[in-house]
Formats: sequence, C-alpha cells, structure tokens
Amino acid sequence: MNYYFCPVIRKLIAAKEARGLSFAEIGKALGRDKVWVAALLYRQATASKEEAEKLKELLELDDECYAAIQKPSMRGAETPSIPSDPLIYRLYEIMRVYGPAIKAVVNEMFGDGIMSAIDFMIDIKKQEDPNGDRVVITFNGKYLPYKKW
Amino acid sequence: MNYYFCPVIRKLIAAKEARGLSFAEIGKALGRDKVWVAALLYRQATASKEEAEKLKELLELDDECYAAIQKPSMRGAETPSIPSDPLIYRLYEIMRVYGPAIKAVVNEMFGDGIMSAIDFMIDIKKQEDPNGDRVVITFNGKYLPYKKW
Amino acid sequence: MNYYFCPVIRKLIAAKEARGLSFAEIGKALGRDKVWVAALLYRQATASKEEAEKLKELLELDDECYAAIQKPSMRGAETPSIPSDPLIYRLYEIMRVYGPAIKAVVNEMFGDGIMSAIDFMIDIKKQEDPNGDRVVITFNGKYLPYKKW
Amino acid sequence: MNYYFCPVIRKLIAAKEARGLSFAEIGKALGRDKVWVAALLYRQATASKEEAEKLKELLELDDECYAAIQKPSMRGAETPSIPSDPLIYRLYEIMRVYGPAIKAVVNEMFGDGIMSAIDFMIDIKKQEDPNGDRVVITFNGKYLPYKKW
Amino acid sequence: MNYYFCPVIRKLIAAKEARGLSFAEIGKALGRDKVWVAALLYRQATASKEEAEKLKELLELDDECYAAIQKPSMRGAETPSIPSDPLIYRLYEIMRVYGPAIKAVVNEMFGDGIMSAIDFMIDIKKQEDPNGDRVVITFNGKYLPYKKW
Amino acid sequence: MNYYFCPVIRKLIAAKEARGLSFAEIGKALGRDKVWVAALLYRQATASKEEAEKLKELLELDDECYAAIQKPSMRGAETPSIPSDPLIYRLYEIMRVYGPAIKAVVNEMFGDGIMSAIDFMIDIKKQEDPNGDRVVITFNGKYLPYKKW
Amino acid sequence: MNYYFCPVIRKLIAAKEARGLSFAEIGKALGRDKVWVAALLYRQATASKEEAEKLKELLELDDECYAAIQKPSMRGAETPSIPSDPLIYRLYEIMRVYGPAIKAVVNEMFGDGIMSAIDFMIDIKKQEDPNGDRVVITFNGKYLPYKKW
Amino acid sequence: MNYYFCPVIRKLIAAKEARGLSFAEIGKALGRDKVWVAALLYRQATASKEEAEKLKELLELDDECYAAIQKPSMRGAETPSIPSDPLIYRLYEIMRVYGPAIKAVVNEMFGDGIMSAIDFMIDIKKQEDPNGDRVVITFNGKYLPYKKW
Amino acid sequence: MNYYFCPVIRKLIAAKEARGLSFAEIGKALGRDKVWVAALLYRQATASKEEAEKLKELLELDDECYAAIQKPSMRGAETPSIPSDPLIYRLYEIMRVYGPAIKAVVNEMFGDGIMSAIDFMIDIKKQEDPNGDRVVITFNGKYLPYKKW
Amino acid sequence: MNYYFCPVIRKLIAAKEARGLSFAEIGKALGRDKVWVAALLYRQATASKEEAEKLKELLELDDECYAAIQKPSMRGAETPSIPSDPLIYRLYEIMRVYGPAIKAVVNEMFGDGIMSAIDFMIDIKKQEDPNGDRVVITFNGKYLPYKKW
Repeated sequence: MNYYFCPVIRKLIAAKEARGLSFAEIGKALGRDKVWVAALLYRQATASKEEAEKLKELLELDDECYAAIQKPSMRGAETPSIPSDPLIYRLYEIMRVYGPAIKAVVNEMFGDGIMSAIDFMIDIKKQEDPNGDRVVITFNGKYLPYKKW
Repeated sequence: MNYYFCPVIRKLIAAKEARGLSFAEIGKALGRDKVWVAALLYRQATASKEEAEKLKELLELDDECYAAIQKPSMRGAETPSIPSDPLIYRLYEIMRVYGPAIKAVVNEMFGDGIMSAIDFMIDIKKQEDPNGDRVVITFNGKYLPYKKW
Repeated sequence: MNYYFCPVIRKLIAAKEARGLSFAEIGKALGRDKVWVAALLYRQATASKEEAEKLKELLELDDECYAAIQKPSMRGAETPSIPSDPLIYRLYEIMRVYGPAIKAVVNEMFGDGIMSAIDFMIDIKKQEDPNGDRVVITFNGKYLPYKKW
Repeated sequence: MNYYFCPVIRKLIAAKEARGLSFAEIGKALGRDKVWVAALLYRQATASKEEAEKLKELLELDDECYAAIQKPSMRGAETPSIPSDPLIYRLYEIMRVYGPAIKAVVNEMFGDGIMSAIDFMIDIKKQEDPNGDRVVITFNGKYLPYKKW
Repeated sequence: MNYYFCPVIRKLIAAKEARGLSFAEIGKALGRDKVWVAALLYRQATASKEEAEKLKELLELDDECYAAIQKPSMRGAETPSIPSDPLIYRLYEIMRVYGPAIKAVVNEMFGDGIMSAIDFMIDIKKQEDPNGDRVVITFNGKYLPYKKW
Repeated sequence: MNYYFCPVIRKLIAAKEARGLSFAEIGKALGRDKVWVAALLYRQATASKEEAEKLKELLELDDECYAAIQKPSMRGAETPSIPSDPLIYRLYEIMRVYGPAIKAVVNEMFGDGIMSAIDFMIDIKKQEDPNGDRVVITFNGKYLPYKKW
Repeated sequence: MNYYFCPVIRKLIAAKEARGLSFAEIGKALGRDKVWVAALLYRQATASKEEAEKLKELLELDDECYAAIQKPSMRGAETPSIPSDPLIYRLYEIMRVYGPAIKAVVNEMFGDGIMSAIDFMIDIKKQEDPNGDRVVITFNGKYLPYKKW
Repeated sequence: MNYYFCPVIRKLIAAKEARGLSFAEIGKALGRDKVWVAALLYRQATASKEEAEKLKELLELDDECYAAIQKPSMRGAETPSIPSDPLIYRLYEIMRVYGPAIKAVVNEMFGDGIMSAIDFMIDIKKQEDPNGDRVVITFNGKYLPYKKW
Repeated sequence: MNYYFCPVIRKLIAAKEARGLSFAEIGKALGRDKVWVAALLYRQATASKEEAEKLKELLELDDECYAAIQKPSMRGAETPSIPSDPLIYRLYEIMRVYGPAIKAVVNEMFGDGIMSAIDFMIDIKKQEDPNGDRVVITFNGKYLPYKKW
Repeated sequence: MNYYFCPVIRKLIAAKEARGLSFAEIGKALGRDKVWVAALLYRQATASKEEAEKLKELLELDDECYAAIQKPSMRGAETPSIPSDPLIYRLYEIMRVYGPAIKAVVNEMFGDGIMSAIDFMIDIKKQEDPNGDRVVITFNGKYLPYKKW
C-alpha cells in the first residue's frame, strides 16, 4: 500500500485489500477489465450508478466512497510529473526515449494526428517465456486526425 | 521535419526523406521493425556494423552518420522532460493518469518487479474501425523481479 | 518579429512580412481561416500538397520551407512551459484560474470526458464596443467521452 | 469530487452536491452564468453581499463559507502550474500549441495589446453534431492596448 | 553590455552605446520617457512608424532593427523565470515578500480587481538623501475590476 | 480569506476581520503605514514590543500571535516562486517584461548598484481618473553601490 | 530520526530504534543483508510472508506495518528529486560528474546496454585506513543489453 | 558519439575514436584507471603536465585540448539535473530509491558523516555469470565525519 | 518563529524561546559555538550523549527531542532549493554571482579540489563600523584535493 | 577553462591565461583583491575607466572586452540555479544546510535585517594545517536593518 494524499483512494484500496479480491475478480463482478477497475479505485475512472452499486456491495464501501467514484476526478493529481517509482518510470522512459520514433511512425502510417488517450483502452497480459516471462501492455486508442479550418 | 539540436539526427532524417523511403521500407531492407528503424534514425538505438553498412548504402550516409549510428547515444537528450507535442504528450498522460493502476495490476499479476524498457520491443499497428481507425501500440518487455540479497 | 530557434519558422514569418500580406489574406488564398494560417506559419499545422504549392507561390517559399510545412512538426517546441509574453500568459492564466470551473461545467453538461484539442477549431473576432473593443476567442472541439473497457 | 487543499472549497462543492443543484440552476437563482457560479464555488470569483446571502440560503452555507465567498481569494492556488487532468490540460495544450498563432492574429487585428483576463467572460455551450457533440468555449475579454509614456 | 540571445537586441543596445546617448536623451528626441525607451531597445515595447523613423536616424539603425522595433515582440523571452541579477532580483523579492500584503491593501482600497500591467507606466527618479540617495520607482496602472457575468 | 499554511497568519487575518478594521485603521493606531501593517499581519515584517502590545490589545491577539509578530519570520515562505494570483502575477510580469529596462535605466542614472529591498518602503495610492481609477504603487529604496575591494 | 510523510515508515524506524537493533542484527535474524533491511524499513523493498512474520515478532510491529511491508510501495516517493542531504547528495554528484564516464566505460566493456537497478544488490563496507577509514559501496547489477527487433 | 555543447569534449572523444583506443588502453599508457581516463576526456578530471603531454602525443591533441585538460573544469555542466539516458538514470534511480537506506547504514556503521566524492575512486568490473554477466561498480571514498565547533 | 514542517524543530526552538536563552548562552553551557548550537536546534547537527543530556536539562526537552538530536537528520529538508527569505537568499546570491570567481581563485591557490562542507566550521562576528555595523561570516573548511586513480 | 556562453568572458579568461598571470598578480597591478579581479573577469563586477585601461594594457584586451568590463553585466547569468560543480555546490550546500541557523544567529546578534551582498567583500585565505590545509572564506557585508514605515 502506498500513502496517497486523497483519503478516498486510501479507503478504496484498503477495502479491496480487506476483501482479498484481485482487480480481475472485481472486474469480473462488474463486467469490466482489470486495468479499468484499478483505474477506478485509484480515482482515474468514473463508475456508472450501477457499477457503483455493485462495487459498494462487493467492497462494503461507505457513502463517501460510493459518491466519489461516480464523479470525474482531477485525474493525475496523485502522480508526480516525473515519476520516482521504477515500474512507472519505465513508462516515462519509453516516452522519453522512443517518443519521437513513435510519433514519426504514427505520422507515417496515419497522417498528421494522434492516438486518443480518452477513447482509449489498456490491456496487460503475461507472456510466458523460458528466458523469463514478459509483460505485454497494449494501448488501443482512436486515431484523431488534426482538423483543418 | 523538426529542428533537432544534434546535427546527425537532422542529417539522418533528411537522408531518409531525400530517398522517399518509409521506416517500414528501410526496416525491410535491414530485417528490422519500422519502430526500431525510427529509433535508430532518431539516435535512440545502435546499429551493428552490418546494419550500418546497409543503411549507409541505402540512404547514402556520410562518414559521420555512418560512425554515429554504431555508437550508443545519450538517449532521450532531445526530448523535453514534459513533452509539448500532443502525440507524444498522450503517452506521458497515459503514464500520469494510468501509471498507478498499471503498477497495481502488474504487481498483482507478476509480483514485485517491473517491465524492462531495455529487453523491450514496441509494435505499432493500424486497426481499421468503421467509427474511425485505431492506433494499437504494444509494449513487450521482460518482467524483472526485484532481487533480494 | 520574434527570434525563434527553428530557422524555418523565421523564414516563413519573414516571407509573409516581405509580401505584406495579412494572415486573413493568405487564408483567403488558401481557403482557410486566418488562425489556421498563422498556426501553419508557426509550424503548428500541416499543409496538404495543394496548400503548400499555393503558399509557395504566394510567399515565394524556398524548397526547405515548402517541404517543412507538409510535415507534422514537434508541436509546442518553441513555446515555454509557462509563457512570459502577456498576451499568451493570459490564456495560461485563464486555464490556471478558471480551469477547475470549466472542468466542472463541462462534466456537468456532457459527462466524464473532454473537449478535443485535435478535432478542434479556433475563431478570433473583434467585437466593437463603445467602452473599448473586445477580443472574442472561440474554441470549438469535439466532445470525447471517456471509453470504458 | 476532487480533494482540494482548501477546506472551504470542499465544503462549498459538498453543499452543492448535497442539494443536487447544477451550476446552471444556482446561476438562475443568482442571476449569473453557470461558469461564473462554478468559479465562485471553486473560490476564483467573489460574491457581493446579496449574492452571498442568496447562496447561503440556497446551499445552507455555514458562516465560514458565507464570509469566504465575499473575499478575493488567492486565485489559482489550487491548480498545478502544468495541469495533469486531461480536460484542463487541453486548455494548456491550446495555449502551448496555438499561443504564438493567436498572438500573431490578435496583434494583426488589434495592434500591440492583449485580451484582458479580468474584464472577461467565459461561455460554454453544447453544439449538437451527428458526428459527435461539440464543446464550444468562448472567451470574451476587453482589448487592452499597450500604453506608451 | 550583456549577452542577449536575440541579435536585434544586441544591435540596438550597441547602436545606443556607439552614439553615446542616454535613454533620457533618446527619450527627449522621441518625446517619450526614458524607461519606455529602454523597454523599446530591449524589445519590450513597440514603436510607431514615426518613432521608428526618428530612432533609425538617431541611432543609424539597419533595416532589420528598423522593422523589428515596429512589431510586437515575444515579451519577457530574454528574462529567466527567477532572475539571477541582484538589481532585477530585488523586484522579484518585493513581489515574493510583499505580494500578499500589496494584494490585501489593493483589494481593501479598490475591491476585487488588479492593477493593469498593460495600461501602465513606470517612472524612475533619484531622491537625494544625505544618508545615501534613494531609488524611487513608481508603477501607475489602471485599476481593472473583475467583471461578473 | 486565503488558506495559508502557517496557522499564525490565518489567526492574525481572522482577528483583523473579526474586528472589522482596515489596514489603514490599524496603521493609524500603530503609527505605521497600511502596507507595512499588511506585511506585518502576513508575517513579512516584525513588530517592536510596543507595536505588538498595541496590536494585541487592538485585535485581541492570543499569546502565540503576540510572540510571533515580534520575531523575524522566514519571509516569502507562503508565496509560490511564480505566483498564480493575477494581482500578484502582474508584479511578477512587470519584473519579467521591464526588468532589463529598469536595470539599464537605474545603472545609467546611479551607476553599478541596486535599489535596496530592505532599506525600503512601499506606498499605494488611488489616483482618480475619469477613464477609470489608477493604482499607483511606489517603491522607495536606498541606492546601494557595489563595493569594490 | 527524520520526519517522513508516510506514517508507516516512521513507525518502522521507531520500532527498530525502540528495540536498539542495528540493521545488521535485523539482517542476521532475517538472513538478509543490512542494506536490504534498511531498504525494507524505508519501504523500498518488499518482504515475503515469512520475512514479515519474523520482523513482526522481532520489532513488535502492528498489523498496519506487518501488512505494508509485504506490498510493493511507490518507490522513491519520500526522496526529493535533487537531494539536499549531503550524504545522499554525494551519490547524486557522482551520477552528475561521473555519469557520462561510467556510461562510456560500461558501453566499451559490455556493449550497448545498462546495469539493471532491479536485478541488483548493494554492499557497504568499511575499509580501515591510517589516513582515515573509507566507505566502500558496491553496486552489482545484471547487464541488460538493448534488444533489437 | 553524443553531441556535447563544449567543443573541447567533442574533440577529445573524436580524437580517441580516431585512434581506435579504448579507455583502458589509454589508461595503461598514462598509468591511470579506465574510469578516470573517461572522466578526463569528458572534462571531469584534470591532468598533470606529464599526463597531458602523454595524452597529447597519444591522441595527437591540438593546443586547445592540451591546455584544457590541465585546468579544473565546471564539473557536471554537460549532465542534465535528472538524466534521460537509461544507463545514467539507473544511477540516479539507485540514489532515489536506496539513498535513505544507504544513509541509514553508513550512519550506523560510521557515525554522522559522509562518503567523500572528492577523495574518491570508481572501479567498474565485469562479473561473468551463466545467467547473464553482471556490472560491478565500486565507489571508494574517504569517510568524512562532521566536525563540531 | 517560523513554521517548520518537522514538529521536533518547532519544539526545540520553542523550548529555547521559553527559557529566554541565546544561542551563545546555550553554546557556553555546551562548550560549543553559537552557530553550531543553532544548527543543532534546527536539526542540522548531531549531539553526543553528553551534549544531549546537558541540553535536555537546560531546555527541559522531552524524550522525543532528546532522542532526535542524537541522530543524523535528513539535512536541508526544511530549506527550499531556492530560498525566498532575503537573509538566506543573499547567501544564495553570493554563490550565484561570485561562485565562478571563488572557484577560480581556490583552484589557483590550492589546485583542483574543493573546500569541504563537512570538515567545516562557520563563525559569525559583528564588526562595528561608524558607517553601519558589518556582518562577518567566515567559512573554514578543509581543502580536499581530487584524488586520481 | 570552462565553456561560457558569453564570448567576452571566454576572451577575458583566455587573455589572462595567455599572459600567465594569477588573479593576485593582476590584483596587485590594479590595486584590487584577487577575488574581485576574478569577479571582474567573469563579468560579475565593473571596472572604472582607469581600471579598464590598466587591464587593457596588462592583458592586451581588444576593444569589445575593454568596453564590456566597464558596464554592469547581467550578474549570475552564467551560473545554473542549482550548481553542478562540486566546489560551487558546497557553497550552495552551506546555504541549504546552515541557512536557517545563520539566519537565526544573525537575527539574534543584529536584529531583523540582513547582511548586504552589495556593500560586500569576499576574502579567501589558505590556512596551513598539518592535517591538511584549510580554505578560509570570509564574507564581510554591511548589516542592513529592515526599515519600517
């Protein structure tokens, strides 16, 4: 457990841990992916009323948590601008080292536009490998071409 | 074309553009992926002597470029710590918004460790979609568990 | 004229000034809005081949400029992260002071999502007023709801 | 709901949510625009005595909140200098990417001066569109020419 | 002389020094205050055509300088965000130490608004004093009340 | 009222507000200027024992406040390095935009030295004007020439 | 004792101090090195269930501490990005001064790759010396070559 | 080869590469360690007259390089405060993650003092390992106890 | 009194003030210099057991303070990286303005090395002067030559 | 020699080195202290006409250097805000670690005021010591009490 400034995040993570449920198990109950569920508990996604009710029951949330997860949060507020944690830093390093190459290839394949981070999904898989298992993270975002006017 | 501080990068990109080759076409000639080729031209990857020779011939590189692409560069030196370009910023935003969720899920699936950004590959695909094509970026990195001692 | 690091921007602005054309006049020739034209000359938008040819003729661009304006640039690279220029700073100040209020209202009107800055247009008008004319800047961006998965 | 450092902001937002009123509904009661009302509750605008009394009654504010909304606050104190939240970041990105173009066009249309962010109004509208609704944000600020002396 | 990045500033200051004129003497010739003249030569103010012509003649400016001083510059671009020079730093220190007190007094005297830095003048005087002369800097800016809407 | 980290500042401002006294009125009672009084309450100036006693009586200060205002504080600790509040930011902007010009003029008028920010006074006046009242802020600091050795 | 933001770290260090045990003594009880134990108590390493149980008994940990040390923490969250403490700063200075030389030598000895900071161990020894004892810190990390694809 | 701002560094590295010598080979000629030699060529160490003469001959240095390597440089000037290069970043990460643990262990073993980074040596070795070779970096610095007075 | 984050510092300073003792008087009782005593109370120096006991008696310290002053603290943690307080800022300004000159002179007098800030003492004296008393601060640190290896 | 951005500094230092004179020797010729001379050559102090003429003759300065050293420079412009060079960093570290203690002692000895960094001198001496010579740096600045008004 990490120490988050926002007390709601701390309560949500503690509730999950107290029930001994994995993100995937909660996801199954909600009909959602494990990464989205983790994003929800870290207050980076928003639950519908139905999702909030299921989660309230599953994790025995209090009213503050139940209300909070239904509202858009100030996303990214708990993450430092340059992350210190090595797992998260590697994502930053990939942006720093490969960002211009990714941009150049996306521009070449799609034109002048971007991959949306809103109409967007993340998938995380384990790829077994005799030389050591591999983490496979897939970003899937809608291509948005720059509009001209 | 963007204005890079390092003159070798500018010459490499200009050489590619002068020949009118795509990253994928250069990749085919080298037997390498298009993203790796882009990383090489932006001086974020290192060519073997054979790769350098093929590239020298293909892009008519001068001696400075030919020598430079065979040496490990100071990676990330041309990218600002917080990117301003929207396409690259979205990768940063994903780290900022979803970093803690990705960390939590990777820790739950694999244990206390990280995805390597060194023993690591990037793939970029276009997924056609009637609601608008989608950019699919896959990171594939070896899982490295924290060593205890 | 300001001193930009990128020599292409300096040449493009100098070409416009040498011809004595306004952004609106260039826009008329291209069939584009004056703000988009300004964004193009400051290398924040990308011209089609046809637009580039018209512009080449109109501003007597050299080959470097002609090629450059057809390629996606590293957007935002010439703007400091916190602007010092008072005109640009006021846009920053609006984000700083009214950002949370704008977010709250957009969330209330549209749900959990954002205004796109890619599928996006800017309009600038002069509103005459006896107490002093007013600058009217309109941002028009597609609403993008957060995808769940 | 987000976690704000200032306890008065947290109480004001909680009071609005407890009553189930939208910013527009509160605005109607006060005779003010929804964006201004949101700015007021996030402590970026100042209420007159009459406005404060109406709001006190409407939202059942305590004395601390009633007094606080009548005083000029330290504006912007709760917003990070580079925002992490995607909705707010897009406003920042617009400044970063289009700032020089907006400056150039305003200078060309009005002369050497700025758009005031004090004698200033914000409007937010929903523009329905079969390809997806659009967010239309309008900034309307007095043109202030640089004084010479 | 200091080393400025912008070559036009360096030429303007060198021209003044080569003629051996003070800012006040140039100001007399232009019918402007010495501080405004200094701001003009450091590219923080904009000359009218008439002013530019007088200055061209007085300082024997080349065409680049003559054109540049008639255009709004990217103000503040040559000043670091936290100044290192002690004379300029003291202005920063005054803002840092006395900023909240100045704000509180202005709010109490005028209401919720600001002193404009655009409709604004600076005066610098020497006040002779047997204990050591004193620098007297006066800022005179229009009071701008926050508009409500 | 703003939310200050230091509880003593919050108590001092609350005490002033509870008594309904202006800075000028408190200044009259102490024989000091209104700006100095504001600086004292924001803990940027230090009271003598006599001043502290008068203030204690006038504002019914508790012992902690009474002791605190007699001790030199860590000045500037509550102000961010780049201010977000528009009123305070304008002072910063003046430093950023006009700093080099002010330096050049002071050097020309006085020689190589600075205006002290310690042997220093601030005056704030309202200048009535049919086009809108004006804020007149005067800095009066001893000229300190650089010593040679 | 230092003041850490995270209450669990403060409790863990206080528990160690209350028992009067050195890191080496705790390490002996756990079968781990003293540096790893210190990393564990500062929440930069993760204990297995067996290690956590031994530590709970040895240091009389409460349930919160017992649970916390078994979970991956947000590493580095308590350390400033540029350290102020002289002992820690010297490690930073070594990176700053000798970083490029270390990189060049590692690249020359091993090729284009890095020393892992995950599959990694630290050893600290005292080397007695008549001119003053010496601190000998050894980093031992797996060489990771950059993968090509 | 990386692009360094200082032209002397670029010439020194180019001279080494042109001769095809490793740092270890140059070290043998000078009677110095390979890491110290790399530090010298990156202008982070200072050569004696004898060392400079040997190096001049060995690498056919010009007079500027010969003079420069005998003078203390502004150390660290070419390294960013937070490194982007992954190999160098790992050293930074070790400081960030393990800094407090290293400090605590050094304090426990030696008392209140530091490891000198001046009376200091670095050794880099390759440790062969069937699971992958390991990089072993050893820092050896004099322990300096805090003086009391 | 300033507001320090660390509660132990606040208690130590409050204890000194409650007894009405100067740093010099406490220093006399401990056999230490006044500056060292101030550093100790601000948790930047470490007391021996004997010193801690004397101080405990003299200032009636509680157990937490008594234990804390015997342990190496995280030095510098309470000071911002660029100080806002004018008295402390002047020390920073001296480093900024005269740092390169001091470096050049020390290198010329001593060779390539530094003044230790660990084997180091500070003295502060008042030098009476009819033109105004002078503050005389002396740094006395061991010269440490760079070791070669 | 270090690589300074300002070409005048580079020429001044090169001129000194070409003549083989120490700062003390130049100081003797000018009747000034060696530290002041170093400050002059690094463009942090200003020469009188007489001093400039002597220096011109002594170092065979060109006209640009001769003119430049007679003008107040933008002090501190070549020094990074947090220095990387270890010798200069130690001065920064002293400010960071001992700043609050120095402030507290100066306030106790002198009252609420500062040590001037303008009416100010620096002396550097070598103190021979069998345990290693010591660097003794003395700052001597006028005490400036805060003015009340």
